[in-house]
Amino acid sequence: MPTVYGLRKSGNCYKVQLVLEMLGRPYRWIDTDQTRTDAFLTLNPNGKVPLLVLDDGRRLAESNAILCYLAEGSPYLPASSWDRARTLQWLFFEQYSHEPYVAVARYIRVWLPEGHEREAELPRLHDAGAQAFDVMENHLASESFFSGGAFGIADMSLFAYTHCAADGGFDLSRWPRIGAWLERVRAQPGFSPMIA
Amino acid sequence: MPTVYGLRKSGNCYKVQLVLEMLGRPYRWIDTDQTRTDAFLTLNPNGKVPLLVLDDGRRLAESNAILCYLAEGSPYLPASSWDRARTLQWLFFEQYSHEPYVAVARYIRVWLPEGHEREAELPRLHDAGAQAFDVMENHLASESFFSGGAFGIADMSLFAYTHCAADGGFDLSRWPRIGAWLERVRAQPGFSPMIA
Repeated sequence: MPTVYGLRKSGNCYKVQLVLEMLGRPYRWIDTDQTRTDAFLTLNPNGKVPLLVLDDGRRLAESNAILCYLAEGSPYLPASSWDRARTLQWLFFEQYSHEPYVAVARYIRVWLPEGHEREAELPRLHDAGAQAFDVMENHLASESFFSGGAFGIADMSLFAYTHCAADGGFDLSRWPRIGAWLERVRAQPGFSPMIA
Repeated sequence: MPTVYGLRKSGNCYKVQLVLEMLGRPYRWIDTDQTRTDAFLTLNPNGKVPLLVLDDGRRLAESNAILCYLAEGSPYLPASSWDRARTLQWLFFEQYSHEPYVAVARYIRVWLPEGHEREAELPRLHDAGAQAFDVMENHLASESFFSGGAFGIADMSLFAYTHCAADGGFDLSRWPRIGAWLERVRAQPGFSPMIA
């Protein structure tokens, strides 16, 4: 049974909960935010959760790489080369053009004390996050999901921080197709909500 | 023959040149930095290069997704599930923990006029970029490459902005294993230098 080191309220960690629950795979969850200790840095020198640890001690970091590994061979990661590539495109989009804005705005608003100096970053984060939502909304004009034409790990990845974007100060009613897609994700068999 | 929309001096675009040259695949290269025009946004709504366009018009964005797609079935992307996952881990590391610091420092120092206000970001970018290099140096203490034990697309991806990190003000002599790894990458058959 694999072990996940994670933080329940982190969207990146929630992705791993979501794929494991949807796959019906048993796992052990160790909730921690102590990622800069010597002990944890031995496990992941990059000092981040989530981290997947297999029974034989092998370790894998990076939420979206963990999604790919766990979903291999399941319907959540397409087998065809092109659909797999499109899924990866959205996974990299999520980490580069979405998470650094949408997740960081949530972090500043929810986790830092009110009046913190980092609140000055919010306007820039809201502009860049809105651009990411525009790109998603555009995609959803012609497709229902992000994982090569079907529901899969790119949807789980994008869902993680999109569904709680209001925490960061985004008004998702500007993107109605995203709202409808969030509902389609929640309706998937085995869907597991974030434990906030 | 696929078409690449790219900018030769961009590291993200150079990755695509590198994999195509190393695979010996013919391609057409359209050099452009006009990524926010209506015409280009029709091709890639996220307004970024590189963009891969197949003969039948299908399009793929995100440099590291393009690497995965082009290298599928070649020795540059491992077939085994675990080695593939480790390769993906480094590809996501590159886009989240490396490129936003190492590439952006280079952008500010090389592309913006001297004295630009964004130079104020450089100390933070240098600290975060150094952390990324520390993580790479640590990995290279026990392995020669980043792509599941062998040379492959995670090496091409990390090479793209690491080899020109001095442009951004990094002194790579602090990380001697990275220096040796850069030479091992340059020694690979079919290696193609960046066109600056």
